[in-house]
Amino acid sequence: MASHMNEYFRPVRQLDAENITFAAGVTALNEACALALCDPGDAILLGQYNYGAFPTDLVARTGLSFVYAAFGDSDQFSENCVKHFEAAYDQARQNGVNIRALLLCSPHNPLGRCYSQAALRGLAKFCEKNDLHLISDEIYALTVYQRPRHANESFTSVLAIDEGIIDPDRVHVLYGFSKDYAAGGLRLGCVISHNRAFTQAVRGGVCRFSSPSHFSMDIATKMLEDRPFIIRFLQDSIEALARQRVLVEALLDQSRISHLKEGNAGLFIWLDLSEFLDPYQQLDDGWAAEAALAAKLAAGGVVLSTGKRYQSPKPGNFRMIFSYDEGTLREGIKR
Amino acid sequence: MASHMNEYFRPVRQLDAENITFAAGVTALNEACALALCDPGDAILLGQYNYGAFPTDLVARTGLSFVYAAFGDSDQFSENCVKHFEAAYDQARQNGVNIRALLLCSPHNPLGRCYSQAALRGLAKFCEKNDLHLISDEIYALTVYQRPRHANESFTSVLAIDEGIIDPDRVHVLYGFSKDYAAGGLRLGCVISHNRAFTQAVRGGVCRFSSPSHFSMDIATKMLEDRPFIIRFLQDSIEALARQRVLVEALLDQSRISHLKEGNAGLFIWLDLSEFLDPYQQLDDGWAAEAALAAKLAAGGVVLSTGKRYQSPKPGNFRMIFSYDEGTLREGIKR
Repeated sequence: MASHMNEYFRPVRQLDAENITFAAGVTALNEACALALCDPGDAILLGQYNYGAFPTDLVARTGLSFVYAAFGDSDQFSENCVKHFEAAYDQARQNGVNIRALLLCSPHNPLGRCYSQAALRGLAKFCEKNDLHLISDEIYALTVYQRPRHANESFTSVLAIDEGIIDPDRVHVLYGFSKDYAAGGLRLGCVISHNRAFTQAVRGGVCRFSSPSHFSMDIATKMLEDRPFIIRFLQDSIEALARQRVLVEALLDQSRISHLKEGNAGLFIWLDLSEFLDPYQQLDDGWAAEAALAAKLAAGGVVLSTGKRYQSPKPGNFRMIFSYDEGTLREGIKR
Repeated sequence: MASHMNEYFRPVRQLDAENITFAAGVTALNEACALALCDPGDAILLGQYNYGAFPTDLVARTGLSFVYAAFGDSDQFSENCVKHFEAAYDQARQNGVNIRALLLCSPHNPLGRCYSQAALRGLAKFCEKNDLHLISDEIYALTVYQRPRHANESFTSVLAIDEGIIDPDRVHVLYGFSKDYAAGGLRLGCVISHNRAFTQAVRGGVCRFSSPSHFSMDIATKMLEDRPFIIRFLQDSIEALARQRVLVEALLDQSRISHLKEGNAGLFIWLDLSEFLDPYQQLDDGWAAEAALAAKLAAGGVVLSTGKRYQSPKPGNFRMIFSYDEGTLREGIKR
């Protein structure tokens, strides 16, 4: 895994096995980061919106809370995002909230976008200045595809941020097999860190409760050691994602369904279905209207994650997974 | 797994898949029981001595504490144990401690003994009377072997206690693949319960952090579905354990090492090495003397778990695993 990541993530400091800790899935390691880096009552800073399971995974058993940075109309993937994170941080401090870490989902879920290098450098600087840990969930790192006739964003790992901006002991990356290798069934995730105390805490205190299966580790090792297979698999995978993205956008356009045009990562596209919300219900409670629409879609056999789950600032957005065969996609969009 | 357990554990109520929840190891489910059944500040009642990892597994992240019942010279596996548990319970209540569950390790680790049916019935009655949950870790259930010319104890699952003594909603059994099938690498354990709210809590709230690998589940399913293999494997396994127990006792006798004569379960035997403790150090601090002896043995290449880890009431006891080949055993005992 270390040599795989050295190849694909281009870390400034080379990784070895001592920097990588495995567990039965990234979910457990999300919680492990929270437990190892924060005390009960502390908070973690997140951008709004973000991966919908963070609130459950990180808060359920830790006594932590979240502080969300809102971005208004500005692009949260450009350097502009830093001032919004700063504002949320300052506000939280005024409210007496002790923030210990900034958590990114990079590439972003549900928006499918990559953070610019300038944004990552700015955020690293911000973390260093305020004694924050920088946790980056990079589980979609190798799902970044290129679309023809489009400004394509490229992925930079926080492990690849230039030396000297942030203490490497403050940087922790989450990675796993479920997305890039479509191998969620392995239940195999890892956390990468140069911080030895952190690694010890995670290995000793947390991984006892969620050790990975030795069979999974064996399968994963064989996969990663077969470099020609990995290179071909990842190449095929991003080509397929690019094709599907072009296809799904064409189908959505035909059906006049608004969707996010930017972004070239992940297995999903961000839809705006707000015009389909029940207008009366929406006046009363927009989130209830969103839930009602999700229920209606589900009754028709189309299951989409709601924007609410991703802390969307307004009701009516949905995350649609497009890594299906063409027939399923056509049928789903039709319904 | 349900039909496997219906066959080998002889539950009063037949089990089906809805009663069984899998996770990546029993360690995670130990904690799950604690989280689902207790609030922070509550306590769990245990016999002294007990499985050495319980204090870490159940307390590390839960805010719980333990209350230990001491048995003095009386047999903790006979019905007599009930009055000692009662005494510990009453004492804790007087101290303002709120006990929510009784946790058994059955067959017992490290003593390798089985609870009598009368003891289990008495404990079930005691739990029902005091609104306690009865959690039974039965991970060594199928390691019960028979020794020639010995009073052999037989294993009874708490799932097999007669109807009407305890509400089945209060009974939870832990089981896994690591001992009976020597398959710790599968990282596959389960908790069996008729309590639907408990099962829901464990599945929804806890297992998200330690889902088992699908490969492990697949392998386990194939194993369990191959009944002739399971029957033969378990038969071979308990025959081998019986042979090893006879052998290890003969070797220990030759070397004049005291050991527990009772017990016919598990992969270990309980040694009394107190005569080998440094007498001066022992006067000062018996547990330090035990640790020093363990270090001396380890330096000689013999790693034994100390009695302290198992809440042994006095220093000098060690748990020795005897499921090795004869040469290793002979060499280990010689050293």
